[in-house]
Amino acid sequence: MPTQRIVVLAGGIGGARFLRGLKSAVPGADITVIGNTGDDIHLFGLKVCPDLDTVMYTLGGGIHEEQGWGRAGESFAVKEELAAYGVGPEWFGLGDRDFATHIVRTQMLAAGYPLSAVTEALCERWRPGVRLLPMSDDRVETHVLIDDLDAGAPARKAVHFQEYWVRLRAGVPAHAIIPVGAEEAKPAPGVLEAIAAADVILFPPSNPVVSIGTVLAVPGVREAVAAASAPVVGLSPIVGDAPVRGMADKVLAAVGVESTAAAVAGHYGSGLLDGWLVDTVDAGAVEAVEAAGIRCRAVPLMMTDTEATAAMAREALALAEEVRA
Amino acid sequence: MPTQRIVVLAGGIGGARFLRGLKSAVPGADITVIGNTGDDIHLFGLKVCPDLDTVMYTLGGGIHEEQGWGRAGESFAVKEELAAYGVGPEWFGLGDRDFATHIVRTQMLAAGYPLSAVTEALCERWRPGVRLLPMSDDRVETHVLIDDLDAGAPARKAVHFQEYWVRLRAGVPAHAIIPVGAEEAKPAPGVLEAIAAADVILFPPSNPVVSIGTVLAVPGVREAVAAASAPVVGLSPIVGDAPVRGMADKVLAAVGVESTAAAVAGHYGSGLLDGWLVDTVDAGAVEAVEAAGIRCRAVPLMMTDTEATAAMAREALALAEEVRA
Repeated sequence: MPTQRIVVLAGGIGGARFLRGLKSAVPGADITVIGNTGDDIHLFGLKVCPDLDTVMYTLGGGIHEEQGWGRAGESFAVKEELAAYGVGPEWFGLGDRDFATHIVRTQMLAAGYPLSAVTEALCERWRPGVRLLPMSDDRVETHVLIDDLDAGAPARKAVHFQEYWVRLRAGVPAHAIIPVGAEEAKPAPGVLEAIAAADVILFPPSNPVVSIGTVLAVPGVREAVAAASAPVVGLSPIVGDAPVRGMADKVLAAVGVESTAAAVAGHYGSGLLDGWLVDTVDAGAVEAVEAAGIRCRAVPLMMTDTEATAAMAREALALAEEVRA
Repeated sequence: MPTQRIVVLAGGIGGARFLRGLKSAVPGADITVIGNTGDDIHLFGLKVCPDLDTVMYTLGGGIHEEQGWGRAGESFAVKEELAAYGVGPEWFGLGDRDFATHIVRTQMLAAGYPLSAVTEALCERWRPGVRLLPMSDDRVETHVLIDDLDAGAPARKAVHFQEYWVRLRAGVPAHAIIPVGAEEAKPAPGVLEAIAAADVILFPPSNPVVSIGTVLAVPGVREAVAAASAPVVGLSPIVGDAPVRGMADKVLAAVGVESTAAAVAGHYGSGLLDGWLVDTVDAGAVEAVEAAGIRCRAVPLMMTDTEATAAMAREALALAEEVRA
């Protein structure tokens, strides 16, 4: 049997953990990850790519396991010092080890390397066992439209996704999600080629709006996925009408989508998705999803450990084969 | 009595320790430090100013006392991580706390602030009790001409001063000291004004070639010191024909100056110096220095502690008054 080429569109923690299960389920597969860079942020003059790093650290064995992001055994001397200089933001938790990654990245970008080349160089150390591509070498920054409570009159303002997500903890209504720069962005080298050559395309249980949605917002990516000969199978990040982790419900509301497994499938649509996995507690949604033209199965979708996650990956691949047949 | 305005041209460790003694000796004085920036270096994409930082940390209470440079209570997580990425140089010891300073500085420079404004901002935290001015806002980088042992034929190459000093530990012959960019550099705002308005100008026992010599190499500075109405008094960094610390003898050789207290005075010259302090062990040099037109006294010049250093500062100020009278 030839090596199976799997393409995964991924955000941060959910995508990274799913990928660990996928690698365990099909150790010999050729996996290309198209990572979201819409949550990238410039902090302290450094280029920070939280989602790419979460994938890289998780698959490379450097992740802070309980937290799901950042480095294991982390210290915070740099951050403390920056605060002593009065230089913020203090709400973004960059550790010393993590800083080194951003310093290397920023230095390489300043030297003229595109983000894709920088990511490849960083992965030479981490050896994540997948090919990790940023969705684009161009700058895309997801902004969130929220109420401007400081304005005298009712008004709205756009804040960086990280400010909404980390500082405000998605605790205020999001009126719109705007991937600034996405319209002018080009897919990074290899992205469209990987999608076209894939045997299977997977949407892990990442955030459908600010993670996978942003990847799909890069012109050409959505079209390539829709046109791909490979089956496209997704896993619901919503279980029992609530996000498994994170605050996906808040950003789903911003785009007018209910926080249900079926609604998320409908949001992607049958033009994109061939198959959809919902959790067993959402078995009642299977019929509606299938009625929308998307093959659907209810299986356990809690990524409690690598084995449970590997089982989810196997179910996704099985559904892909079913669709193909 | 009006506040005494003292201008000090300073390098790193020696200059910083002398300044601590000077502050202790004349707590009410208005001290302006013109700091050497010729040893500045770009590392990991960050702007590092070792001499300015040594002065700032020493006077601000953040210095690693035994080492004389770098931060007290320092950790090295960032450096370890950079090495894990294969990113060097490893021979330059940047600690985590120190990194924060360079991150803030680099971010402000990138935002368009000149180094003098950045230094002032950093000093808002450290409150060194002196006005710390970089000699110039323009980039000056001291290079050292050494033998190129990798070349097939006899050849020479220029290396950054820090590479010569820190990596090679001045262990190879220096054929020339080249302050690259000095000719085109302008004194930083306030430098010439401070020199013109000074009541006393002091050369601490800093390196006469790569520290004070570099400050004097900025066009206009040497001329301003020579033309100043204030007495100019220096303290010999050479005691008993050897540098008190550091490897000043190596760079003195490169400019054809003997490593003696008298020779260094002669190197500065009577056009610049009005007074010169040598150590008591070099009392035999007093006559020769005075014969060269520079008032000279032999006093203890070992900066063993702040009180001993304060006594040196008092001797320097007393010699300045003697010259003035």
